[in-house]
Amino acid sequence: MDLQQNKKSENTAPCPFREAMDLISGKWTMSIINNLMTGKMRFKELERSVAGINTRMLVKELKELESKQIICREAFATVPPTVEYSLTEKGKALRPVLIEVQKWALNNPLNQDQL
Amino acid sequence: MDLQQNKKSENTAPCPFREAMDLISGKWTMSIINNLMTGKMRFKELERSVAGINTRMLVKELKELESKQIICREAFATVPPTVEYSLTEKGKALRPVLIEVQKWALNNPLNQDQL
Repeated sequence: MDLQQNKKSENTAPCPFREAMDLISGKWTMSIINNLMTGKMRFKELERSVAGINTRMLVKELKELESKQIICREAFATVPPTVEYSLTEKGKALRPVLIEVQKWALNNPLNQDQL
Repeated sequence: MDLQQNKKSENTAPCPFREAMDLISGKWTMSIINNLMTGKMRFKELERSVAGINTRMLVKELKELESKQIICREAFATVPPTVEYSLTEKGKALRPVLIEVQKWALNNPLNQDQL
């Protein structure tokens, strides 16, 4: 895979790499996707699992991820109504990216003074 | 690589994955790193190569990447002085992440209405 091509296309036609990076470079995006890799989750579960996120941010991120067909949202007519979030196939296809990020993170720990 | 471990650690001790994601989830970060994968570059070259970035943002991003030892900055006592940026080994180690993002982007194009 020649990354060189990417460099030239960065400035001209729409660039899939740039679009993908825009999508996954949200502060919370990959953490949400990472959590959903293990299966369906409800809103409150997700809110507890993604360190530092608040309700407003989670609502916004989930809406964006749903609009980009990375996750899907299922509502159940229980009393009270319940909603579950899960990854679409497109979302699950991000697993290799997450695994490479995790490998890089473990092999290249940031020193305390770099945080 | 079990991503499940990550989920539990998301909320407790410092999490290498979360730190790595914070590092690489800057809007321009991975585009800058992607461009430097092909070799040393000067400021103006980088500014031209990263679509949409302006001088102030590039200065800020480069400072942060240098402080996190992802890139290194070399100044040359030419007239006028010149500065070159290149990836450290830690920066080059992000290549597999970039390749997986690129693969995902090519296999999962965002529809026009999702941009």
